[in-house]
Amino acid sequence: MAKKLWGGRFKKKIDKEFFEFQKSIQYDYKLAKYDIYHSMIHIIALKKAHIISANESERLYSALKGILEKIKNGTFKPSLYSEDIHTEIQNGVEKKIGSLALKLHTLRSRNDQIAFDERFYCKVEARNIENFLSAVISSLESLGNHYKKYSIIGYTHTQRAQRIYFKHYLQTFQFMLTRDKEKLSNFERSLVIYIGAGALKGTSLNRNYYNKAINDFLKFHPVLSKEVKFSENPLDNVSDRDFIIELLTILSTLQMHLSRLAEDFILYSTKEFNFFSLPEEFCTGSSLMPHKKNPDFLELIRGYTGRVYGNLIALLTTMKGLPLTYNRDMQLDKEPLFSSVDIIKEELKILPKFIKKIRLNEDTIEKSLQEGNLYATEIAEQYVRKGTPFKKAHDIVGKAIRQSEKKNPFFTAETLQEAARSLLEKEKQRNRVVHLSK
Amino acid sequence: MAKKLWGGRFKKKIDKEFFEFQKSIQYDYKLAKYDIYHSMIHIIALKKAHIISANESERLYSALKGILEKIKNGTFKPSLYSEDIHTEIQNGVEKKIGSLALKLHTLRSRNDQIAFDERFYCKVEARNIENFLSAVISSLESLGNHYKKYSIIGYTHTQRAQRIYFKHYLQTFQFMLTRDKEKLSNFERSLVIYIGAGALKGTSLNRNYYNKAINDFLKFHPVLSKEVKFSENPLDNVSDRDFIIELLTILSTLQMHLSRLAEDFILYSTKEFNFFSLPEEFCTGSSLMPHKKNPDFLELIRGYTGRVYGNLIALLTTMKGLPLTYNRDMQLDKEPLFSSVDIIKEELKILPKFIKKIRLNEDTIEKSLQEGNLYATEIAEQYVRKGTPFKKAHDIVGKAIRQSEKKNPFFTAETLQEAARSLLEKEKQRNRVVHLSK
Amino acid sequence: MAKKLWGGRFKKKIDKEFFEFQKSIQYDYKLAKYDIYHSMIHIIALKKAHIISANESERLYSALKGILEKIKNGTFKPSLYSEDIHTEIQNGVEKKIGSLALKLHTLRSRNDQIAFDERFYCKVEARNIENFLSAVISSLESLGNHYKKYSIIGYTHTQRAQRIYFKHYLQTFQFMLTRDKEKLSNFERSLVIYIGAGALKGTSLNRNYYNKAINDFLKFHPVLSKEVKFSENPLDNVSDRDFIIELLTILSTLQMHLSRLAEDFILYSTKEFNFFSLPEEFCTGSSLMPHKKNPDFLELIRGYTGRVYGNLIALLTTMKGLPLTYNRDMQLDKEPLFSSVDIIKEELKILPKFIKKIRLNEDTIEKSLQEGNLYATEIAEQYVRKGTPFKKAHDIVGKAIRQSEKKNPFFTAETLQEAARSLLEKEKQRNRVVHLSK
Amino acid sequence: MAKKLWGGRFKKKIDKEFFEFQKSIQYDYKLAKYDIYHSMIHIIALKKAHIISANESERLYSALKGILEKIKNGTFKPSLYSEDIHTEIQNGVEKKIGSLALKLHTLRSRNDQIAFDERFYCKVEARNIENFLSAVISSLESLGNHYKKYSIIGYTHTQRAQRIYFKHYLQTFQFMLTRDKEKLSNFERSLVIYIGAGALKGTSLNRNYYNKAINDFLKFHPVLSKEVKFSENPLDNVSDRDFIIELLTILSTLQMHLSRLAEDFILYSTKEFNFFSLPEEFCTGSSLMPHKKNPDFLELIRGYTGRVYGNLIALLTTMKGLPLTYNRDMQLDKEPLFSSVDIIKEELKILPKFIKKIRLNEDTIEKSLQEGNLYATEIAEQYVRKGTPFKKAHDIVGKAIRQSEKKNPFFTAETLQEAARSLLEKEKQRNRVVHLSK
Repeated sequence: MAKKLWGGRFKKKIDKEFFEFQKSIQYDYKLAKYDIYHSMIHIIALKKAHIISANESERLYSALKGILEKIKNGTFKPSLYSEDIHTEIQNGVEKKIGSLALKLHTLRSRNDQIAFDERFYCKVEARNIENFLSAVISSLESLGNHYKKYSIIGYTHTQRAQRIYFKHYLQTFQFMLTRDKEKLSNFERSLVIYIGAGALKGTSLNRNYYNKAINDFLKFHPVLSKEVKFSENPLDNVSDRDFIIELLTILSTLQMHLSRLAEDFILYSTKEFNFFSLPEEFCTGSSLMPHKKNPDFLELIRGYTGRVYGNLIALLTTMKGLPLTYNRDMQLDKEPLFSSVDIIKEELKILPKFIKKIRLNEDTIEKSLQEGNLYATEIAEQYVRKGTPFKKAHDIVGKAIRQSEKKNPFFTAETLQEAARSLLEKEKQRNRVVHLSK
Repeated sequence: MAKKLWGGRFKKKIDKEFFEFQKSIQYDYKLAKYDIYHSMIHIIALKKAHIISANESERLYSALKGILEKIKNGTFKPSLYSEDIHTEIQNGVEKKIGSLALKLHTLRSRNDQIAFDERFYCKVEARNIENFLSAVISSLESLGNHYKKYSIIGYTHTQRAQRIYFKHYLQTFQFMLTRDKEKLSNFERSLVIYIGAGALKGTSLNRNYYNKAINDFLKFHPVLSKEVKFSENPLDNVSDRDFIIELLTILSTLQMHLSRLAEDFILYSTKEFNFFSLPEEFCTGSSLMPHKKNPDFLELIRGYTGRVYGNLIALLTTMKGLPLTYNRDMQLDKEPLFSSVDIIKEELKILPKFIKKIRLNEDTIEKSLQEGNLYATEIAEQYVRKGTPFKKAHDIVGKAIRQSEKKNPFFTAETLQEAARSLLEKEKQRNRVVHLSK
Repeated sequence: MAKKLWGGRFKKKIDKEFFEFQKSIQYDYKLAKYDIYHSMIHIIALKKAHIISANESERLYSALKGILEKIKNGTFKPSLYSEDIHTEIQNGVEKKIGSLALKLHTLRSRNDQIAFDERFYCKVEARNIENFLSAVISSLESLGNHYKKYSIIGYTHTQRAQRIYFKHYLQTFQFMLTRDKEKLSNFERSLVIYIGAGALKGTSLNRNYYNKAINDFLKFHPVLSKEVKFSENPLDNVSDRDFIIELLTILSTLQMHLSRLAEDFILYSTKEFNFFSLPEEFCTGSSLMPHKKNPDFLELIRGYTGRVYGNLIALLTTMKGLPLTYNRDMQLDKEPLFSSVDIIKEELKILPKFIKKIRLNEDTIEKSLQEGNLYATEIAEQYVRKGTPFKKAHDIVGKAIRQSEKKNPFFTAETLQEAARSLLEKEKQRNRVVHLSK
Repeated sequence: MAKKLWGGRFKKKIDKEFFEFQKSIQYDYKLAKYDIYHSMIHIIALKKAHIISANESERLYSALKGILEKIKNGTFKPSLYSEDIHTEIQNGVEKKIGSLALKLHTLRSRNDQIAFDERFYCKVEARNIENFLSAVISSLESLGNHYKKYSIIGYTHTQRAQRIYFKHYLQTFQFMLTRDKEKLSNFERSLVIYIGAGALKGTSLNRNYYNKAINDFLKFHPVLSKEVKFSENPLDNVSDRDFIIELLTILSTLQMHLSRLAEDFILYSTKEFNFFSLPEEFCTGSSLMPHKKNPDFLELIRGYTGRVYGNLIALLTTMKGLPLTYNRDMQLDKEPLFSSVDIIKEELKILPKFIKKIRLNEDTIEKSLQEGNLYATEIAEQYVRKGTPFKKAHDIVGKAIRQSEKKNPFFTAETLQEAARSLLEKEKQRNRVVHLSK
C-alpha cells in the first residue's frame, strides 16, 4: 500500500482488503494527463498567492512535465499500489524531487481534481468520437456514390414497401449519425472545465490567483483556451456528474443507430435477402461448419448495445437519491464511462473500412425490384391524380393484388396495373347499370 | 370495432382480441390536437394540388375545426372502438360531413402523421416543463432569500464537512434545474416538425404544395412559425424516434436531480437532523401510528425515479436493432413518453408550493453549527497561510481532533484551535531540541 | 376528497393537488378482492380476541361479502375520490352498515394490508400465466406435429447452418417457455402470504387469534390452504418487495423468449425468407400502401420487451438504497407490476390462436434445403469417420465450397461432395509424390 | 495473431483491428478450467468412439492436465494473441505435444464449449457466493447477540415509528440475505451442465460415447456428479443464456439488499443519528478536511448497485430479439457476468469483518428511546383493549401529541399518556353533558 493523502485523525491502519476494494488506480490512471493539468494550474495559483516560492513552483512544474512526457510517449506505468491517480502522481513527483511534492496538495481536494479530470476527458473523447463519426459518414457517402444509380427495396415492418434509391437508403444512416455528431459537438463546446471547488465550498486560495493561473496555463495549451474556468458553484461542481450522463445518453442513441445499421446489414447479407456481400476480412468462420461466413462484426455491434445501455443505467442508478454534495458512490462513474467510450471508438474505427468494402449483389437486387407490389402505391396514386378518391383507389389496388397473387405470387407491376384497370372498369359498368336501372 | 384505414387486400376479418391488443386509441388520443393540425395542413396541400376542390377543402377544414374546439374545451371523448387517433378523427369528420371524410387520407400515411404528432407533442410539453421548472427555481430562490443570512452544515459522504450558507446550498439545486431547463430549451428550439414523409418515401403530393400549405396554416398558428417543415428525408422521418429518447433522457436527469433534493429534504426533516419543518399539507399520517407525519411527497418523488428511468430504458430497448424504416414496435414509444411527461409535470406543479412553506428549525441548526470539526479545514488553512506546509497542517489538525474528541465528542472550534496550537508548539520545541542536540 | 384513515395529529388540511398526486386508487383497485380477504381474516381475529363482538363481526363480514360479490360479477366501481383501495373498501362498508365500519381498521396498518394484497395478486397471476403458457406450448407442439416430417434450415448468426427438423426448431421455444413455466411454478408455490405485520412490528393482536382466523377463513377458500400465514418477521414483511422483483424478472426472461420467437417468425414471413404464411387475421395493412400485410402482432411482441424490461428496472431502481422499513416510494411498485402482468397475459392469450394458423410454404422450404452448404458439416464428419483428422476434413470441405461457389453460388450437396472428394484425392497424390521423391 | 480454429473457405486474411475487436481471450481466460474439463470429456468420448486411439487420448489428456495444474497453482498465463480461451488451450496443447492437438477439436464446436464453460462457472460461483453469504448472515447474528437486550428505534418513511429490538432490526437483513441464499442454492442445484450440442444440432459423435465419457470424467471429479449431462436439446443449448440472466437477477436483488443495509448504516453513523460507530479500518479521510471519517465502504456498496443492475440490463438487452440459434452477440454475456460476480464477492468478503466491529453508541440510543411518540401506537392500543373504538383512540392520541408537542417537542411516553387520558376524560364528560341535556 502506497502513501495516502489523508490519515492524521485515524488511529487504526486501513484494512488491506478494504483498501483493495476502494482504490481506483486500476481504471482512473486513464485520467493521468488531465490530473497533471490540474496540478500545473494549481501550483501556478499557489505561486501567485505566495504560498509556494517561484523556485518551488518551478521544480514542481518540471517534475509534472516529466510525468506528462511519459504519458504522452506511452511509458507511464502507474503503480497498482497507489490509491488513485491523484496519489500516484504526487508519489511520482515525490520520487523525483522529494518532500517538496507534499506541497502539491496544498489547499486542494480530490473532489475538485476528479471533477476537473473527468470533464477534460469527456471533452477530449467527445471530439475524438466526432472525428470517427465523420469518417463513418463519409464511408456511407462513398458507398452511396459508388452505387449512385442503383435502387433497392425500401421496407416497413420488414416487409417490402416501395422502390427507393440505395443512396437514399444509406443517407438515412447518415442523417442519424449526423444528429449524433451534432449532439456531441454541442455537448463538447458547452462543457466548461471547472477548477477550484475544494472539497465542497472552495478553499482560501481565491478566484484571482486561479484566474491568473488558468491564463498562464492556457497559453501553453491554446487549443483549450476559454474552456477552463474558476468554479462558479463549488457545491454543485463536486456533486455534479450530469456531463457524464449526457455523454452516455448521446452514446446510447448513437449505439442504437449502429444496432439498426447492423441489423439491416445482417439481414441484407443473409442467403435469403442476398443483397450485400460483406468483406471477408471482417467475417469469421465456424470451428465445426466448414461453409460458414458469419457477419460477426455486425453482430458484435448489435450486441454491444446492451453494454452501452447498461453503462447508462448504471450511472443513473448510482446517482439516484444521493444526498449533497460529493459521495464516494460517485467514484463508480468512471468504469461505465470508459467502457462506453472505448466500445464506441473501436466500432467507429473499423466501420469505414468495412462499409467501403460492401458490395451489392446486383442480380438479386434487380430481380427483387421486379415485384409488382413495390409499385402498388404509385399505381393507386395515379388513379387519384385521375380523380378516383384515394380510399377507392386503395381498395381497388388491394383487390387487384389478391387477384394477381392467386395467378402468380411473384406478379409484376404490369400485371397489377392491368388487374386494377380491369377491376375499375367492371365497377364503372356496374355503377352505370345500377344508374340505368334506377 | 370501428372502420379501419386499410383492408382491401385482406380476405379475413381481423381477430377481435388481436384488434384490442394492437389498437392505440386508449393512449394516443392525447395527440388529437396535433393530429388535427396535420390534417389541416394536409387538406390545404390537397387543395393546392387540385386533388380536392376548394369547397371540399372548406368542409373538411371546418369539420376538423369543430373537433379541435371540443379538444380545447375538454368535451372531446374519443371512442375506444377506434383503432387509433388518426382513425378516430377521420370517423369524427365522417360523422359530420359524410363520405367526403374519406378524402382526408388521400396520399398520406399514418407513419407520417404519428411522427408529426409526436414531434408536436414533445415541443409543446418541453415548453410546459420549462415553465414549471422556472417556478421551482424561483421558489428555491425565495426560500433562500427568506433565510438569506442563515448558515447550515455542508455535507460530503453524509458526514458533516463545512459551514455553508443555506442560500448557497439551495443554489446547488437551482444550478441543476437550470441546466435541465437549458437542455429542454435547446431541445425544443431545435426540434423541427416534419410533414410529408408518406409511408417511407414521400408521396406524389409534392414539396411545393406542402410548403404553401404549411405557410397558410402557420399564419393561423403564429407561435410555431418556422418550425413545421416539409420532410427533408422521409426514410429517416418515419424511422426516427431520437427526439423522444432525447426528451426522456433530459427528464431522467431532471428526475435524478429531484431525487437528490428529495433525499436531502427527507434527511433534514428527520427527528435526528431536524433542520427542516415540512408543511403539513404535503405530509400524510399512518392508519396505525397516531404520531406519524411522513414526508410522502418527497418519498414519492424519490420513488418515481425508477419509473422515469424505466421509461427511458423501455424505449431504448424497443428501438434496439430495428430494421429500417418504420416498424410497429415503434407504436410502443407513446406510453413511456406520456408517463414520464405526466410524472414530471405533476411533481413540478406541486414543488413550488411545497418549497415555499419549508421552515428552518433555527435552534437545532444554530446548535449544530457549534461543532468544532466544521472549522477544521479553515484552521488548517490558517496555518498554511502562516507558512506551515499543508500536509503538516492537515496532520496536526487531524491529531488535535483526536485529542479534543477524547475529552468531549462535541468540542467547539475554539477547543480545536487551541489543541492544534499546542500540538504545533510542542512539535516546534521537539524540533528545536533535536536541532540543538545535533 | 373522501375520508382518510388518519389525521388526528394534523392541524392543516391536505393540499388538493398533493392528494391527487399521492393517491393510488386509480390502479390499486385491482387489489380489491385480496384486500377484502385481508379484512375478512382480520375481523375474525378481532372477534376471537373479543375486541369486536360476534354480532359486529357478522355485520362487517356480510358487508365485505357484498362488495366481494360485486367485484366477482364485475359491478364493483371504485370511487376515484378515495385515497386507496383500503380506504375505498372501508368507505364501502360504511355506506352499508354505518360507523361500525370504522372498527375494521382496529389494530391494523395499510403497510400490512398492501403487502398481503400484493402477495395474493402475484400468486394468482403467476398461476394464470402458467396456464396461458401451457396453451402456447401446446400450440407449438400441435404445429410441430402438423408438420411432423418437415425439415427446415437451422441458423447460426442468421446464416444458414444445417438442416434440422421443423419440429425440433419449434421445440427450442417449447424448452424456453417450459423453463419459464417452471420458474413461475416454483415462485408461486413458495410464495407465502403473510398477515399481521402491523405498521412494522406487529400489533397487540397476537399470533393465536390470527392463526385461528386464518384457519377459519381458509375453510371457505380451500384452494389457497396452507399458504396464508401469520407474519414471521413483521419488519421484513413491510420492507420486502422481493416477490414482485422476482415475478418481474421471470416475466422479463419470458418476454425475451417471446421476442426471439417474434423475430424469427417475422424473418420467416418476409418475402425473402418466405418460409411462413402468417394468418391474415393477425396482420394489418397500410393506410397508404395497398399491398401491405404486416406482421404487427409479432412486432408488438418484440416491441413490448422494452416495456417489460423497463418495468423491472423501474422497481429495482425504486428499491435501491431505501432505508428500513416501509417507505412511500414502495407504493410505486404496483403500476410496473400490473403493466408487465397485463402485457404478458394479452400476448399469451393470442399466441396459441396465431401459432396454430401458421402455414409453411413447402415449395420455398424444399428448394432452400437443396443448398449444398447445409451438408458441409456432415460431409466433413464422414471423412473423420474414415480416418481423416477433423482439422484437415474441415479445411478440405472449406476449399471445396470455394471451388463449388465459383461455378454456381447455389451448388448442391452432391457437387460439394464431389469437389471435396477430388481435392482429397489430389492431396493424397501430392503426398504420395512427395513421399516417393524423398 | 495466433492460429485460428477456422478459415478453410476464406481467401482473405482477417483485418487486424477487427481481430482485436472480436477476440475474447482478455476476459474469457477466466473459463480456462472449465474449458479443460470440456476437452477432457470430449477426448474420452472420441476415444470411446474409436476416432482417436487410446494412446492419442492419453497424450492429449496429460497435456490438458498439465495446463490445469498451471491454472490451479496460478501460473497459467494466457496469450493475449489468441482469439479465445478455446483456441488458447488448443495452442497450449499443441506446444506440448505437437500437431496431435489438432484432433482436440474433432466433431465439436465452440458454441457447445462456451455454453458448457459458462454453466460450470455459474454453478461454482453461485456456491462461492452462498458461502460468503453465510458468513455475512453469521456476522449479523453475532452483532445481534452482542447487543441482545438493546432496543433501537424502528423507522417507517425515515421517521421514528416504534421501539424495536436491535436484534430484530438486524434479523430483517438476515431474512433478506437468507432469501438470496436460498435462491442461489435452488439455482445452483438445478443447473445442469450440458455437453454435446455441436454447433446447433449435435454432431455424429453420439450420446452413448458422451454418456460413458461423462461417467469416466466424473469419477475423478466426484463433487459434481450427476450434474454434467449429454445435451437434451442442442438447438436450445447453444441459444440459451437464461442461466446467466437468472444469476444476474439473483445478484441484483442481493445487491439491492446490500444497498439498503448500506443506506441504513450510513444514516446511523451520521453525527445526527449517531447510533453506530463504524470501524475506522474501513473508513477513509479527506485530503483537504482533516476531521473527516467517511463511510466509504458503505457508499461504494450502495454505489455498486448501479453496476450490478446495469450488468443485468446489458444482457437482457443483448438477448432481446435474437434469432435462433447462436449469434455472436452472445459473446458479450461474459463481461457483465464476471463483473457482477466479482463485485458481489468482494463486498461479501469484507462485510463480516466490518459488521462485527460496528459498535452501538449506547447513550445516544438510550436518549432517543425516551421520545414519547415511539409509544403512541401502544398507548392507543391500550385504549382499544379497554373498549375504545380504534378510530377514536387513534384520534385522541393524535390530539394528545399535538398538545404535548406544543409544551415540549421532546415529550415522554408518560406525558403523552397523561395528555391522552385527560382528553378522553373531557370527552366523556362532554358526552355525558350532551346526554343529560337531551
